[in-house]
Amino acid sequence: MKKIEKIENIRHSLAHVLASAVKELYPKVELGMGPAIENGFYYDFALPIEASGEGGINLKEIEKKMKELIKKDFKFERESITKEAAKKLFKGEKYKLELIKDLKEKKVIVYKSGDFVDLCKGPHIKSSKEIPFDSFELERIAGAYWKGNEKNKMLTRIYGIAFENKKELSSFIEIRKEAEKRDHRKLGKLLDLFTFSELVGSGLPLFTPKGTIIIEELKKEIEKICRGYGFEKVITPHLAKIALYEASGHAKKFSEELFHVTSEQTNEFVLKPVQCPHQTQIYASRPRSYKDLPIRYMESEKQFRAEKAGEVGGLNRVYAMTIEDGHTFCTIDQVKQEIKNMVEIIEKFYKSIGLWDNHWVSLSVRDPKTPEKYIGDIKDWNLCEKILKEVSDEMKLGAKKIEGEAALYGPKLDFMFKDALGKEIQIPTVQIDFATPKRFDLAYTDKDGKEKPPVMVHRAILGTYERFLALILEHFAGALPVWLSPVQIYVIPIGEKHIKYAQDIFNKLNLLNLRVELRDENETLSKKIRHGETQKIPYLLIAGDNEKKNKTVSVRKRSKGNVGELAVDKFSKMVQNEISKKI
Amino acid sequence: MKKIEKIENIRHSLAHVLASAVKELYPKVELGMGPAIENGFYYDFALPIEASGEGGINLKEIEKKMKELIKKDFKFERESITKEAAKKLFKGEKYKLELIKDLKEKKVIVYKSGDFVDLCKGPHIKSSKEIPFDSFELERIAGAYWKGNEKNKMLTRIYGIAFENKKELSSFIEIRKEAEKRDHRKLGKLLDLFTFSELVGSGLPLFTPKGTIIIEELKKEIEKICRGYGFEKVITPHLAKIALYEASGHAKKFSEELFHVTSEQTNEFVLKPVQCPHQTQIYASRPRSYKDLPIRYMESEKQFRAEKAGEVGGLNRVYAMTIEDGHTFCTIDQVKQEIKNMVEIIEKFYKSIGLWDNHWVSLSVRDPKTPEKYIGDIKDWNLCEKILKEVSDEMKLGAKKIEGEAALYGPKLDFMFKDALGKEIQIPTVQIDFATPKRFDLAYTDKDGKEKPPVMVHRAILGTYERFLALILEHFAGALPVWLSPVQIYVIPIGEKHIKYAQDIFNKLNLLNLRVELRDENETLSKKIRHGETQKIPYLLIAGDNEKKNKTVSVRKRSKGNVGELAVDKFSKMVQNEISKKI
Repeated sequence: MKKIEKIENIRHSLAHVLASAVKELYPKVELGMGPAIENGFYYDFALPIEASGEGGINLKEIEKKMKELIKKDFKFERESITKEAAKKLFKGEKYKLELIKDLKEKKVIVYKSGDFVDLCKGPHIKSSKEIPFDSFELERIAGAYWKGNEKNKMLTRIYGIAFENKKELSSFIEIRKEAEKRDHRKLGKLLDLFTFSELVGSGLPLFTPKGTIIIEELKKEIEKICRGYGFEKVITPHLAKIALYEASGHAKKFSEELFHVTSEQTNEFVLKPVQCPHQTQIYASRPRSYKDLPIRYMESEKQFRAEKAGEVGGLNRVYAMTIEDGHTFCTIDQVKQEIKNMVEIIEKFYKSIGLWDNHWVSLSVRDPKTPEKYIGDIKDWNLCEKILKEVSDEMKLGAKKIEGEAALYGPKLDFMFKDALGKEIQIPTVQIDFATPKRFDLAYTDKDGKEKPPVMVHRAILGTYERFLALILEHFAGALPVWLSPVQIYVIPIGEKHIKYAQDIFNKLNLLNLRVELRDENETLSKKIRHGETQKIPYLLIAGDNEKKNKTVSVRKRSKGNVGELAVDKFSKMVQNEISKKI
Repeated sequence: MKKIEKIENIRHSLAHVLASAVKELYPKVELGMGPAIENGFYYDFALPIEASGEGGINLKEIEKKMKELIKKDFKFERESITKEAAKKLFKGEKYKLELIKDLKEKKVIVYKSGDFVDLCKGPHIKSSKEIPFDSFELERIAGAYWKGNEKNKMLTRIYGIAFENKKELSSFIEIRKEAEKRDHRKLGKLLDLFTFSELVGSGLPLFTPKGTIIIEELKKEIEKICRGYGFEKVITPHLAKIALYEASGHAKKFSEELFHVTSEQTNEFVLKPVQCPHQTQIYASRPRSYKDLPIRYMESEKQFRAEKAGEVGGLNRVYAMTIEDGHTFCTIDQVKQEIKNMVEIIEKFYKSIGLWDNHWVSLSVRDPKTPEKYIGDIKDWNLCEKILKEVSDEMKLGAKKIEGEAALYGPKLDFMFKDALGKEIQIPTVQIDFATPKRFDLAYTDKDGKEKPPVMVHRAILGTYERFLALILEHFAGALPVWLSPVQIYVIPIGEKHIKYAQDIFNKLNLLNLRVELRDENETLSKKIRHGETQKIPYLLIAGDNEKKNKTVSVRKRSKGNVGELAVDKFSKMVQNEISKKI
């Protein structure tokens, strides 16, 4: 059993104190349940009419009452009573009575704290003295169905946050504020990168010209790197007969998340939930010889998952994802070099994004205790693990062996990064797969004239463009590197008489394929600059009398401010250099 | 009524002669029907067992019998008889009796020709003398359900071709042979451009690395041209709530061809049948001012049509098409310039493909006799027509006014090209649309502060990539211009000792981003060259002793043969020049 940390007991006890406080303030309230959760606690209430509705309850008032109670210095006391006694004790509390009725045990555990008593198995702290007075806060209220079932009554849930000390509480609040500021949905709207339409439906983002630029730049970069390692781009359809995924095993794995496609003519298609089976069909389209291997395909096409309607939101949970996916088909002797190539690709790409410095690598292997959860020959598994270990050693990846994290068909290397808020992200992965080629009867003719199945190596680099865009928006708080910025430069004429000069500069930079906009709105200079800053434009070029005379621009660099006057050519060379170096 | 050409009468009469010949050869045959068709005729037969199956009938033998009959010099004679008489006359011919039974008229028309008599309304030629003896041919047999209904019996259909003279027949056979050679399905397989998979399903092409290169090159070129005219790329989802297409009117228009998307979670989605409504939602995502217009979106995403399973095939009829689509949202004052831009884009693109020289333009307007078939204000229609006429005059397009060819919502300019076989192709189009912006409540704030709907201008340039690929493959018989060729250069070492030098050349050209392959198979030089020719590679570079010594390559140009020895740098500059000029 997992060890229960003290802070969890404090949080759970605070839930009781919360219920106790609400009960004192609103005696007619009916109590639901209240557990500890990550970072805090909650409690569900059926509020009496006078306290429900907007402005009905006051969190500050409840918090004050909680602190009054805590000051009374009471004990948390466990007691085991009969069901009958419990029913008497909780008379009038219909939710508690329902819970008691559902209990299989004969005895019922209750916890007393001061005048309050709750149906609860604990554990709790010993006394209210242990609650750090200044390190919890009531946070917000939300609706929640009783027992999470939408057929039941909607109760009012009060959330609180609680930590061991004030410093931790403040730091959590700070991080959350930062996260809200960095929320990709907010940034997406502010920077006009993507939008949702009532008519199209949620979970289906539409990318505006600016959002499309970011996606296309990422695509160009990743395809350029991969092309250097022999990957060739392919295009596969977005729907297929379900037979394809029955063969691959995905129809079963994703049965609940499959989108079925029907028309008056046919009903045999589904929207593709994964890419890999399609690429096997291109491999299978002609005879292959050992001389053709390795064959490396990559593509950036949509895949589809029927998420629950309530769960889609922003770019992280969508119905259709554009996945950057790639596979190598090779001989067993070629696997190691292919994996090394893929690790190099991952390193190059994440360096270009500035995320490489803070990562670790997991050598994800089988759980030796549950061999039945995996398919394939034990000899193959050992060989693959040995290869991955060698890659880690030879490339100095220092991969940590993590048991139980392998894929169904083989072990893998997973790359873990930390985002700007310190949250761990796992996107890139390299996986060895003996099973899929066999399921699809893939073959190549070897030197000895025999038909053999190739090995398939899967690699993901940035995962889906939708989630990756959300990630980097939040990581950079919208201030994307110059090469990824939809608008790289604003040219700002100080007054009307500088518009022509500003236009000349715009034309010059535009011809160099720099993404530049002329900000010639009829507004003050400071407003124009503020607008450029809000839009996180990397460079603002101010053009006034002096600059016109000197044939220069005054350069304001994002987050640096004024960096001086530069000749236009010199400025453009500097920016082009930053772009090509992905600074 | 359409005037019936003499050749149609000849073809129809030949169908009777065919039936007569088959009846003489196989007296137990039962007759179906036999009309004239484009380029020839056919007749359906229920063959007796001894004549059915493979090798059962001999087309040459039947053709010989037909010529014997024609020589007998008989008349085609029309007669009107009672139903009763007809039933007696066609006793034993169950298909004919079924037709007689279905007839609503009291009298039945039959045609006699020699000893043969058929149920037929005519018309026919007067006498078999009129049939040009040497200008028809039996062509092939196929299965065909009686009355085209798959619940009925499958009959044997014999097809013939027939023309007014031998020259026309030969020319038709020649063109057909050429068309077969150019068939994009054949070329797609030969050149390894795309493939189909049983598991994925027909109508759903998978593009191999080589096919993908062509599509991406086309995309790059068209986007480059359009970007020069202010088009910005967007990305919209592949499914949407049906509400979107109900608002646009497409749900009704394409109701039979809609793919519905269902899952355990939702059933409100369909696969998008057209692009335009999605782009309106990006426009609608924020307030627009007259200063923002024109706003120009383009995208290359899939759209879906639920074709009948029997009708999909090759790249011309597929379930999912990648459409290059674009729209301008502008004020009425800007429409004319936008259309001019679009015409320029079309001209630039088709010039780069080499199809511009042989085209004409249709100014497709309403049919004034059926105004009820169109929506919108007559004043708007007249204005639009006037604008299109002015564009045609000012740009010297010489557009011919064609009545009845307008879109539902407005008049358009259609560009008609001729492919290599002389067949007319209509792909590019520019359309003015007042209706869609109003249906979606699109608006911009005008100078006077009032909200007004923008005008939408639709443009198609290459249509869908799938059909366009089929078109250019057939047009160029697979020998694509250098810039579109998936492999531009083969480097061919004469013998084993030249491989290293060939590899050096390969590396040099590869670094210049030329698409080059090293052909170092263990085979004779002439076989390597033949392979390059079959694969329609624009340039074959031979590397042997001389070339190595002189630091040159011997260049073989596609369809030109040997064009001499060139320094590698000189060669690469020449090819780069051809690519940038799209020669």
